[in-house]
Amino acid sequence: MKITEVIITPIAIPDVPLANTKGVHPSVFLRSVIEVKTDSGFVGLGEGYGAKRTLDGLEAVAPILEGLDPYDLRDLRRRVEAALPDSGGVNAPTALADHKVIDVVYSAFEIACLDIRGKEVGRPLYDLLGGAVRKTIPFGGYLFYKFAKQDLTFGPDIMGEVMTPDTLVAQANEFSRDYGFKSWKLKGGVLEPELEVETMLKLRESFPDHALRIDPMGAWTVPTAKRIADQLEGVLEYLEDPCRGMDAMAELSALIHIPLATNLVVVEFEQIIEAVKKDAVQIVLSDHHYWRGATGAIHLGEMCRAANLGVSMHSNSHLGISLAAMCHVAAATPNLTYDCDTHYPWSTKEIIKGGRPKFKDGTLQVPEGPGLGVELDHEAVAELHELYKTAMVKDRDDTDEMLKYIPDYVRKVPRW
Amino acid sequence: MKITEVIITPIAIPDVPLANTKGVHPSVFLRSVIEVKTDSGFVGLGEGYGAKRTLDGLEAVAPILEGLDPYDLRDLRRRVEAALPDSGGVNAPTALADHKVIDVVYSAFEIACLDIRGKEVGRPLYDLLGGAVRKTIPFGGYLFYKFAKQDLTFGPDIMGEVMTPDTLVAQANEFSRDYGFKSWKLKGGVLEPELEVETMLKLRESFPDHALRIDPMGAWTVPTAKRIADQLEGVLEYLEDPCRGMDAMAELSALIHIPLATNLVVVEFEQIIEAVKKDAVQIVLSDHHYWRGATGAIHLGEMCRAANLGVSMHSNSHLGISLAAMCHVAAATPNLTYDCDTHYPWSTKEIIKGGRPKFKDGTLQVPEGPGLGVELDHEAVAELHELYKTAMVKDRDDTDEMLKYIPDYVRKVPRW
Repeated sequence: MKITEVIITPIAIPDVPLANTKGVHPSVFLRSVIEVKTDSGFVGLGEGYGAKRTLDGLEAVAPILEGLDPYDLRDLRRRVEAALPDSGGVNAPTALADHKVIDVVYSAFEIACLDIRGKEVGRPLYDLLGGAVRKTIPFGGYLFYKFAKQDLTFGPDIMGEVMTPDTLVAQANEFSRDYGFKSWKLKGGVLEPELEVETMLKLRESFPDHALRIDPMGAWTVPTAKRIADQLEGVLEYLEDPCRGMDAMAELSALIHIPLATNLVVVEFEQIIEAVKKDAVQIVLSDHHYWRGATGAIHLGEMCRAANLGVSMHSNSHLGISLAAMCHVAAATPNLTYDCDTHYPWSTKEIIKGGRPKFKDGTLQVPEGPGLGVELDHEAVAELHELYKTAMVKDRDDTDEMLKYIPDYVRKVPRW
Repeated sequence: MKITEVIITPIAIPDVPLANTKGVHPSVFLRSVIEVKTDSGFVGLGEGYGAKRTLDGLEAVAPILEGLDPYDLRDLRRRVEAALPDSGGVNAPTALADHKVIDVVYSAFEIACLDIRGKEVGRPLYDLLGGAVRKTIPFGGYLFYKFAKQDLTFGPDIMGEVMTPDTLVAQANEFSRDYGFKSWKLKGGVLEPELEVETMLKLRESFPDHALRIDPMGAWTVPTAKRIADQLEGVLEYLEDPCRGMDAMAELSALIHIPLATNLVVVEFEQIIEAVKKDAVQIVLSDHHYWRGATGAIHLGEMCRAANLGVSMHSNSHLGISLAAMCHVAAATPNLTYDCDTHYPWSTKEIIKGGRPKFKDGTLQVPEGPGLGVELDHEAVAELHELYKTAMVKDRDDTDEMLKYIPDYVRKVPRW
């Protein structure tokens, strides 16, 4: 079986102004839809980041995948590395996962190859990862402080301005009603730390049994993080990336009792070793989009088990192909025992047939069809590709977007 | 696809008196032949240890595999753990790999499941592991001090007594002629350390370009090992398990410049973390028989890459099913960059159709047929099963066997 054609379609999806340490989400988010065709008639799907850096990488690799055997992931890796010689391999000194262009591009195609293999053998993708330990996948609700959306050209707002503890709790109530989530993660690092503490305490009051987490994305210094952690001890399930950098996380970890999670300081397998040596984190966030695809995410699970680290799952803004892949990875990772993150409720569109999957009690069933178990809705893709062309947004810049809301905004990490 | 029947056949294979730190090989070695049948008509093969401990485990698990889906390795694991509650899981405080009964039993069936999957999809097993980075698999010659075989009831001797540096070099010459090996490993810990040094130096003289290794299986104290390592600096590619225990290896590692390899102090994934923290070893020996099958061996490769450890491959006495599996694992482990060990030249029998594979320049080609790419020769299995019944050897006890050659032999680790 050989790959005969690869189609990359950039799409833009209406987004809402979700705030974070870097700034705020622009009016659309970008994704790449990947279709990999084979001489056997099977088509594998993938969904990746859509910003220029990734899109350029995907488009550079696509033409040289002709003739690749979808089983030969090592050949895929070689081809990706050959096409992107200067884009940062495993040892690239980059801090952010989505800068690991080689891993990101490899991952997008890896999922498509596994989708093809699953379709060929009539098996759900999780079976190619060693089988499912769970088929009901629990997700947590991802809560954001946000602005009221000003420019409605590309789509409506969701839930207006949320910039106080009380309106954030209202947001959680709405998500609870619509999705049934049993845990919450607050994207922190946006308001004064004491206001974010107040938010978490009010969430605890309204949802006494929910697991609670906050992710300030490195916005706090070690002393601030220590102060906040002391106030939230017994409240948080875990504290995600309160400080920037492995050494700051290690310093904090020694001072507090709440487990530290990360998708910033451990984004390479080598960094697991460093993190363990420094006892910097206790939970690593998995994500097939940059942990070398679904097989890489399974390796991550094994490594974390060996290193006595917990595993949770990271999310970026995404649609249904990614959501399906996340479900398969979660199904096949025995020690992924925390509810998975998802930005899914913050979008309204879908590119897979059958439309948007319905959450029940905060969970989704892993798709049981062959491969990913989802089919592409080409009309929906065409519509969002049109939006991509119309919107004229080719990169994500949350800081630049923030200037529309706060004209004198200056990004600062740590801020407090 | 479901498993309908599992057949375990213990076999005995004529062996020769190979000496090691524990004693000497008995007149036969034991293996288990595993046949796993499915409702789809595919039969998966496996080959495992044959001593009582393993055989009891395999036979306890076999009946409860009915109904297992060969894709569902996690269900396989659950069933093995359920059947062997007291046999040592991943955290069992056992020092030796073949005591990890759960892992050993799981591994034997895992290979059979992968063989079934490969046959179903018409793919060599390495394709289920991510594809082959090499198809020519280099093996090293495994050299042993040995006694002349006294009891020829079950089979002839090979090469008579070898208990001096010169006769050991003659053994290497014979293997070089017949197999073309490009590297040598000496099973050490048998003669006085200075005689083993002399042996290695004479090997170096006769084979100036061969990679040389010695494995004293923990026979040396740290000071002895330090003294020997200093004499062999620049001569050895690596030094395998000179001392017993992680801390002794770490102590030695800090004193010498030769890389340390192990199949004794790192036999669990958790121990990789400990070994890295202590900088105890630089090379870990892979072996699908106890590293949780072929997929476990691939995980091991990934973990070693992340931990900046080299990967070599361990061997016990084995036949062609294991040899095929070893080739597939070696093919699919990118960082397995050392020649693999094999005891294969020390046996003369075979249980696969087509007879004994031929080495060329010390290498074998990975089988390209579906799954493992080997078929069982049922007549040959029946013959060796008869020998198993006749030989009345149900366990391996090298120390007890040694008393036949050295009546006052006392096992001692470390000895020097």
